[in-house]
Amino acid sequence: MQNESPLQAIRIVMVNTTHPGNIGAAARAMRVMGLYNLTLVNPHKFPSKEATALASGALDVLENAVVTETLSEAVADCQYIFGTSARSRHIGKEELPIEAGIEEIHTLLSQNPDAKIAILFGTERTGLTNEEVDICDKLFYIPTENNYNSLNISQAIQIIAYELRRSLSTKKAQAIVKTPHYAGELPATHEALEGLFSHLERVMIESRFLDPENPKHLMRKVRHLYKKATLTQEEINILRGTLNALEKRAKSSNREDE
Amino acid sequence: MQNESPLQAIRIVMVNTTHPGNIGAAARAMRVMGLYNLTLVNPHKFPSKEATALASGALDVLENAVVTETLSEAVADCQYIFGTSARSRHIGKEELPIEAGIEEIHTLLSQNPDAKIAILFGTERTGLTNEEVDICDKLFYIPTENNYNSLNISQAIQIIAYELRRSLSTKKAQAIVKTPHYAGELPATHEALEGLFSHLERVMIESRFLDPENPKHLMRKVRHLYKKATLTQEEINILRGTLNALEKRAKSSNREDE
Repeated sequence: MQNESPLQAIRIVMVNTTHPGNIGAAARAMRVMGLYNLTLVNPHKFPSKEATALASGALDVLENAVVTETLSEAVADCQYIFGTSARSRHIGKEELPIEAGIEEIHTLLSQNPDAKIAILFGTERTGLTNEEVDICDKLFYIPTENNYNSLNISQAIQIIAYELRRSLSTKKAQAIVKTPHYAGELPATHEALEGLFSHLERVMIESRFLDPENPKHLMRKVRHLYKKATLTQEEINILRGTLNALEKRAKSSNREDE
Repeated sequence: MQNESPLQAIRIVMVNTTHPGNIGAAARAMRVMGLYNLTLVNPHKFPSKEATALASGALDVLENAVVTETLSEAVADCQYIFGTSARSRHIGKEELPIEAGIEEIHTLLSQNPDAKIAILFGTERTGLTNEEVDICDKLFYIPTENNYNSLNISQAIQIIAYELRRSLSTKKAQAIVKTPHYAGELPATHEALEGLFSHLERVMIESRFLDPENPKHLMRKVRHLYKKATLTQEEINILRGTLNALEKRAKSSNREDE
């Protein structure tokens, strides 16, 4: 059966997971990125209250999780198997940073859209054993700050799930910039802008901030400042409304003076 | 002082965090990707055993965390402020998927290597308030499976920290953005901008343009208008100089009245 979404091709396999809470957190991390296939190899405890609590709304992932006794069973129907590793293993496997690794998965799936791909996560403290690494095609690692390699397993799954979605999701094109509601409003016309600048210049001269003999230098800066904002007509109305109110107030003060 | 690594320019700001464990998990998530600057605005509980336990080896991040009472203090010296949001806010801010957002940070830092950039995370249940969003330049969101938006705050920070490291620490050749003549001048800090907004609000109320009982709606538009311009300190000086001159003139008129 062909995968409807490339993300359906991916199976997350957690091997000998010690803390049940990590299984729940992993389910949540997967679900939020659109990954649904979780296989648990010989988990210390499952099902469990801790996993359910940490799965939050991702109970469907937990309920559909496949539990196996051996890693071999877990990946029996997979064409490609990738391990994850925090450290350099030096046992002759190619090790790729996760971004390049998932680019490779992308290529594999474009060649074989109905392939099944497993990504393995070893036990929390020590990771995958050498025997487990042996059945992998390649290893992926997540580049980190070099003196501190401590990624929690659910955080590692979160990053990989994010990166899988980023690279594989057919809905990638929909991750577009959401434009704010005023988009579509055209920027103000040249004429409207010039009206604002004249108004500003008049008020600035009246207030004696601008030297009427030599207004150009400062006005150039003021123009530049407002040009950068790409004002809409509504914004010009607000600015000119303020200027009108200021002028009116100054005039009424002056009238009282007389 | 110029940032040695672009990652040093980034400040993670957690606002009103409810669960102390999330602060520890966030510190760990940051540290593993090489982010060290954490600011906590009015945390429910800090320091705490829970945070320390979940920080694992990232105690240095926790110990150096800055705690403030208000968000304004937390970002006073920042030039750029980005909020994070799980939902579409519809209050006129541009919303970018995180990948595009961090590409934008990359560009900002290549123009102004010593800029300070804050990324804000709101309280767990409800995210950033509208008032907190008001001080942001733009919002970032993490694209997720559309019927399930439940990213734990530390997992969101983990993804963003990963994406920051991926984008900012790679020394890939950059398409140089043509910089405008004022590049090199840093944009004004948050504190300077807030000073301008308070001053504007005062003058607009004095001039009776702004209803002192209900200034928020219009002030949000005024803020947005000036935010779009990415003002420099010199430009703020010009605007505030004008406001001062207007106030002085109004006062002298009033004095003459008496």
